[in-house]
Amino acid sequence: MSAAPVVNSPLDLAGWSLRHLARVEEALSRWVGEGAPAGLGEAMRYAVLDGGKRLRPLLVLAAEEAVCSGAEVEASAHAVSDEAALRAVSDEAALRAACAVELIHAYSLVHDDMPCMDNDVLRRGKPTVHVQFGEAQALLAGDALQAFAFELLTPDDGRVPPAVQAVLCRLLARAAGSAGMAGGQAIDLASVGVALTEDQLRHMHRLKTGALLQGSVMMGVACGPANAQAHEALSDYGAVMGLAFQVVDDILDVVADSATLGKTAGKDAASDKPTYVSLLGLAPAQAYARELQVQAHAALARSGLADTRALAALADMVVDRTH
Amino acid sequence: MSAAPVVNSPLDLAGWSLRHLARVEEALSRWVGEGAPAGLGEAMRYAVLDGGKRLRPLLVLAAEEAVCSGAEVEASAHAVSDEAALRAVSDEAALRAACAVELIHAYSLVHDDMPCMDNDVLRRGKPTVHVQFGEAQALLAGDALQAFAFELLTPDDGRVPPAVQAVLCRLLARAAGSAGMAGGQAIDLASVGVALTEDQLRHMHRLKTGALLQGSVMMGVACGPANAQAHEALSDYGAVMGLAFQVVDDILDVVADSATLGKTAGKDAASDKPTYVSLLGLAPAQAYARELQVQAHAALARSGLADTRALAALADMVVDRTH
Repeated sequence: MSAAPVVNSPLDLAGWSLRHLARVEEALSRWVGEGAPAGLGEAMRYAVLDGGKRLRPLLVLAAEEAVCSGAEVEASAHAVSDEAALRAVSDEAALRAACAVELIHAYSLVHDDMPCMDNDVLRRGKPTVHVQFGEAQALLAGDALQAFAFELLTPDDGRVPPAVQAVLCRLLARAAGSAGMAGGQAIDLASVGVALTEDQLRHMHRLKTGALLQGSVMMGVACGPANAQAHEALSDYGAVMGLAFQVVDDILDVVADSATLGKTAGKDAASDKPTYVSLLGLAPAQAYARELQVQAHAALARSGLADTRALAALADMVVDRTH
Repeated sequence: MSAAPVVNSPLDLAGWSLRHLARVEEALSRWVGEGAPAGLGEAMRYAVLDGGKRLRPLLVLAAEEAVCSGAEVEASAHAVSDEAALRAVSDEAALRAACAVELIHAYSLVHDDMPCMDNDVLRRGKPTVHVQFGEAQALLAGDALQAFAFELLTPDDGRVPPAVQAVLCRLLARAAGSAGMAGGQAIDLASVGVALTEDQLRHMHRLKTGALLQGSVMMGVACGPANAQAHEALSDYGAVMGLAFQVVDDILDVVADSATLGKTAGKDAASDKPTYVSLLGLAPAQAYARELQVQAHAALARSGLADTRALAALADMVVDRTH
């Protein structure tokens, strides 16, 4: 990989997001619930479509774009020799990866909202899935969404190379499982009313939220050609983003109201859950978020990639967001 | 692939199963819950270890053995040239596939037993997972087991070729998802107290139970070298086995007692669920099971494989079982 000229012109994140999300929404709308029995398909679509910030899909697509920006075309594992064809392979893989991470995120929210977990009735301003469709259907819809994520990653139409499929499945399974998201939720469950150290809190969030956010970045990386330097730098970026997201989430739980959040505010404090704010205090938590933002930009600068503007803008968005 | 001499000597299924299950149990015990937070890992292990007939893993291993028995060694997708190395790749892939299907089966039981679904308190003679660990932990353990199934299929130690990993993930995701097991459960949920036709009942079971059983067979096939003839015949065998398993399950729900079954007998009738027995009557359901057994053997005869004795013995076991 030879160094490409670094692109510094400003990026219009809103326009960039709009363009990329249009593809994601169209794909999700086309794919989710297809071939499912009517009631189940409806619950799956309700859980996934028309809601959420889609941060994880955007991270996948921004990471793929970044690794493709800085690379000479190599033969690589993609086994495609011409540049346009290679890019088409990356794009198809990244679109599927973007949808797959969102399915995992959506399923986790469906199960998280259930009465035996957080017992939430409102999500993104709508009744939660179990309120709308009943608990049994919500349970099954979540289960089916997780399976469908892996189905999306393994098409048999020849458009995504098997080696890429295998890596994407590996990254997603690890991010979602007991050493990732589900493991973090289990620690969270066991932590209510317990005094955690900052290290323990960070470990919990690294699994619960961080693993899937970092996984999203690394799945994007896996779709394109990345050298070891870019791989390592974007892995650092992903880890920092996961942490930053959670710190800001904890801050917003205190400073924002339910209408802005689209979910119940003040819930963490009410349920006696440890948060960065309860542990560090509000102002230090805000300072920590800024520090993480700086670290994210520094990681991108280390990547050696030509165009990391979308990833940089997403880091700013995560820290500056109000909901 | 040239025809290999057909092996007709009798197979000691008990000995064969014992030998293969020892590997499966050892692998599950080593893998399940590794790296998980303590409580979650414990619930995952409780759900998976030391219980069940392990029919699905046995189908994977028997199918892999069958396709390996009848094949000349080809270069194939495995990219390994020497026979011993090729067999080692098949064996490693098949062991992982065998464990993965059992994890999916185990997670489905955990979620199925929960109060919002079947509300069962007894499974394999033990308290169900949510009774033992609480509903929230049971929900998470099921979720984590599903993710872990795909993690098992995608090792990064170089011992299973990426192309095999991708096919295994595809087969498992399809078998487990909304057009497979989860979809069948949703139809089942919607069918309580509803009069189904035989076609509708068969469709429900083809998804709910059949998809994962057939998927187990085809995952075994994917681990070894199979030509189109063997592929098609074993796909037919898997479909018939899925159906036979459910017909016999419905028969046992009527004729066996809870102690023998290790779960609550007479539950289908009590909950007004449609079954093959309620639809066809007991004697015709028994005759149908025999007919399916004959069809399973006929499919194996069509495969052109040298040694399908384990698959044949498993077909007999499924139909002749008393629990």
